[in-house]
Amino acid sequence: MRTAIRRLGQAFRALALITLPALGGSGWAQSAPDLGAAIDDLVAANRILYRQGVVDGFGHISIRHPEREDRFLMSASLAPGRVGKADIMEFDLEGKPVDQRGRSIYSERFIHSEIYKARPDVNAVLHSHSPTVIPFSVSQVPLRPILNSAGFLAPNVPVFEMRRVAGSGSLLVTDSMRGKALAETLGDRPVALMRGHGNVVVGPTVQRVVARAIYTEVNARLLIQAITLGGPLVYIDAEEGRAGEGNRDRNEAGHGTDRIWQLWIEEAMGANVGTNMGTAEPKR
Amino acid sequence: MRTAIRRLGQAFRALALITLPALGGSGWAQSAPDLGAAIDDLVAANRILYRQGVVDGFGHISIRHPEREDRFLMSASLAPGRVGKADIMEFDLEGKPVDQRGRSIYSERFIHSEIYKARPDVNAVLHSHSPTVIPFSVSQVPLRPILNSAGFLAPNVPVFEMRRVAGSGSLLVTDSMRGKALAETLGDRPVALMRGHGNVVVGPTVQRVVARAIYTEVNARLLIQAITLGGPLVYIDAEEGRAGEGNRDRNEAGHGTDRIWQLWIEEAMGANVGTNMGTAEPKR
Amino acid sequence: MRTAIRRLGQAFRALALITLPALGGSGWAQSAPDLGAAIDDLVAANRILYRQGVVDGFGHISIRHPEREDRFLMSASLAPGRVGKADIMEFDLEGKPVDQRGRSIYSERFIHSEIYKARPDVNAVLHSHSPTVIPFSVSQVPLRPILNSAGFLAPNVPVFEMRRVAGSGSLLVTDSMRGKALAETLGDRPVALMRGHGNVVVGPTVQRVVARAIYTEVNARLLIQAITLGGPLVYIDAEEGRAGEGNRDRNEAGHGTDRIWQLWIEEAMGANVGTNMGTAEPKR
Amino acid sequence: MRTAIRRLGQAFRALALITLPALGGSGWAQSAPDLGAAIDDLVAANRILYRQGVVDGFGHISIRHPEREDRFLMSASLAPGRVGKADIMEFDLEGKPVDQRGRSIYSERFIHSEIYKARPDVNAVLHSHSPTVIPFSVSQVPLRPILNSAGFLAPNVPVFEMRRVAGSGSLLVTDSMRGKALAETLGDRPVALMRGHGNVVVGPTVQRVVARAIYTEVNARLLIQAITLGGPLVYIDAEEGRAGEGNRDRNEAGHGTDRIWQLWIEEAMGANVGTNMGTAEPKR
Repeated sequence: MRTAIRRLGQAFRALALITLPALGGSGWAQSAPDLGAAIDDLVAANRILYRQGVVDGFGHISIRHPEREDRFLMSASLAPGRVGKADIMEFDLEGKPVDQRGRSIYSERFIHSEIYKARPDVNAVLHSHSPTVIPFSVSQVPLRPILNSAGFLAPNVPVFEMRRVAGSGSLLVTDSMRGKALAETLGDRPVALMRGHGNVVVGPTVQRVVARAIYTEVNARLLIQAITLGGPLVYIDAEEGRAGEGNRDRNEAGHGTDRIWQLWIEEAMGANVGTNMGTAEPKR
Repeated sequence: MRTAIRRLGQAFRALALITLPALGGSGWAQSAPDLGAAIDDLVAANRILYRQGVVDGFGHISIRHPEREDRFLMSASLAPGRVGKADIMEFDLEGKPVDQRGRSIYSERFIHSEIYKARPDVNAVLHSHSPTVIPFSVSQVPLRPILNSAGFLAPNVPVFEMRRVAGSGSLLVTDSMRGKALAETLGDRPVALMRGHGNVVVGPTVQRVVARAIYTEVNARLLIQAITLGGPLVYIDAEEGRAGEGNRDRNEAGHGTDRIWQLWIEEAMGANVGTNMGTAEPKR
Repeated sequence: MRTAIRRLGQAFRALALITLPALGGSGWAQSAPDLGAAIDDLVAANRILYRQGVVDGFGHISIRHPEREDRFLMSASLAPGRVGKADIMEFDLEGKPVDQRGRSIYSERFIHSEIYKARPDVNAVLHSHSPTVIPFSVSQVPLRPILNSAGFLAPNVPVFEMRRVAGSGSLLVTDSMRGKALAETLGDRPVALMRGHGNVVVGPTVQRVVARAIYTEVNARLLIQAITLGGPLVYIDAEEGRAGEGNRDRNEAGHGTDRIWQLWIEEAMGANVGTNMGTAEPKR
Repeated sequence: MRTAIRRLGQAFRALALITLPALGGSGWAQSAPDLGAAIDDLVAANRILYRQGVVDGFGHISIRHPEREDRFLMSASLAPGRVGKADIMEFDLEGKPVDQRGRSIYSERFIHSEIYKARPDVNAVLHSHSPTVIPFSVSQVPLRPILNSAGFLAPNVPVFEMRRVAGSGSLLVTDSMRGKALAETLGDRPVALMRGHGNVVVGPTVQRVVARAIYTEVNARLLIQAITLGGPLVYIDAEEGRAGEGNRDRNEAGHGTDRIWQLWIEEAMGANVGTNMGTAEPKR
């Protein structure tokens, strides 16, 4: 386990050295991470999201292929908590698997393929049944950020309604037409809710998408509590949202994603975080 | 532990090969699983429901006997988390144990016997004190589905009121008369609440009943949060509910129960799900 | 650990053989358990209540001495999760320790001494900061049972207000005068809330008190959710409450406390309940 | 692990012997703890707050240097659950690190430096994103104590609004000007909320600050539930608050912080608290 954590750490450090200067750019082109490191991070992301309660048996996260912007990488159809390196497959932007070898694939892969088409700035896509966004997805009350870490939700979050696309019937995004409609609802924003179903979260790196997914869920829970108190609320405004995202883009002020990514990996790997009193050497 | 998981997996695969083509039919007649595999799944179901917080020290789940539609299998009277293979007993449809050997039996076994009589389509029955359905059971507000995975609750869930059956007094279903009244309230639906007590959940297989029980609890929790937001809500309508159930019946679109059953078994067995980074071989 | 569980099981079985026929009588006189078994159960009760979230660092549970109705047994002043056999001390009904040997004692021991004086039917007393009763303790809304397992709360629960006893100032019951006032508020009921502080729970055995404490907390949580739904609610009425308590008194219908006590002990001892698939022999 | 717990216990006992008689005085001058013991307690505090859910990947706690009132000690920039002894650094009251050696430092260290300047009575400062205070921080409803253990919040808690200090933009306290404004909002009180961000908690010792942080979070959660019930509430008044704090200052009535600090350390170290039945010797 320690070896795996160190290896992940190395993969991440490599990723950081290569990519951080160029976060915010379009595609990977200026800063593509190493393929092996990218797959390690994708597997870690699956585990972290499971451990943090954002995904359960359903949900899937993908990354744009570091070497080909017309491909993406995602696990075969498995519960995210069980995804391993050997489960990662390659898909094209029609959602077609490149080398299927008889493996089951996610029926909602079109969420990923259509967003990678529509959004050159996006390199990671997550679809989850994040529980606490569901109440907002079925309500008239908009999901808005009250928490600094969720400022990327400013000013509010669009809701995708399948009935406008495909009449009544299945809520699953099981073809390109539905995927394209979802991408249109998402527009240029980082998160869209899917009525009665869950959400989609996108971003320039898999670490940012994982953080956005977790803080969207936290913000939803705290907003319900704030609404319970009654009366007017103060929301994170667009400028505050941009300031927070700027910090994260530049990994400044210690409020980038790397500090908490290390913690999340350790929690996901089942390490009893916090139980050792520390060694003689300072941590990285 | 790994051996047990593999054995359960084999039992489940056998079950899948035999039963899946005929899910939705009546009784087991076309697709009866092997008795040993059926008992393994029943024990796993007890453990999963305990681990998922649907049952605590109380509650019980049964399956119709794979070889005799006038019998059912259920544990001796134990907390579900402690049930093992040797605890499974056989009962007839009057709730009488076939080979009691001095073991304690659940006083509310009549919930099971009367439903198996009334519902030839049902092969598994769960009675639980699922906590978040209690508020709905004592309120005028109906439990309705807002979550896709709970579409089987559409359009709403009936509530069994013991006072209409037996005056005031004990809320326990401790004889055939009370069991029959509960079966009448349930009608042809998958779930009924029991006022101030819990619920009953039924289905064509034990996996479907476990999934329905878990998602009923999740939906109840999310619906309370949605109601907290105030204002009109969008519910899963009957057509959307049928589409979801159709997917699950045909185990299509990767949204059948088998993907998450594997995860639930691993969680219930205490495996630290998610902590290993995966092997060289892809998972089944 | 297994040895400890078996020993506790034996202690409990001994207790059951001796006491169950006479539950509901006054004092232990007809059915006093063995002193060693009684201490084992008291230690287990501390651990169970900690594990179930009813007590945290504060709170204490006592039993009337099996051999002397004018004495009671309680731990030295420790967090309940840390209490062991060697920490149990003896007190008289003025709250005076019999053999203190320099150990710290709970300042609120007068809750116990005064209730044992006032209530000959009571053989176990718990004071806890059970979290979800606090909102009811500071509100005009009465805590009433909506859950069958909490029927003992019918028709409602009195609230002790220290300001009527001792002006403003400390909320702690640190002398006989305050303890007597609390006992008067409790009257002949099983539970009283203490405004802004917690509750006191009493009963004929330590197992009944532990169950009452846990289900009071569960009921409080579910009642808040039911009130959130809005509209009229159906409460457990006095007759339903008596029927439930009668079942528990006679340990009938499998709804006595012993089935769940075994589970609670195993959970408290840190056993991974539910993870083994069972042995060849049926459980007791 | 046991050795570490014993060592921490010894450090704490040393701390207690030296400091307890003088709690409530200003600065450490009369009762400075040993530097090594102080660092041990600071590391433990980080772990406890992480384990108790008050901090996650963000948040930081410091203590005034036991030997120099114009210095404070705090970890390098790490998630609190990962902080070890070797990570503790020294800062002056301009927030400047004394011996940085290339380590990352918290950008919001000015919260600590400015409060140590303004508050000679304070020897420990925590900044956290304590989740349940966020709803109060964005609402018009004041956070007030309803729980005895949170009486230090009486009569209510001020809210720091960054927009009044620095226009819109980043909510982070990243310089002395912002830190000074926060200290002014805090005034002479133990807790201030930071709108949309979290809170700051101060006190005479690190144990008091940890306890205040935990009970602030608990109180917030219970207050939301009480408000859900509707109607008038009874709050802990100023006199009750002072009585509780007096008990804690004098570590009287068994309601000081030491009893629960031992439990919190054991929980944070990952010990399975409660699972052993106790040894032959009574605990300290």
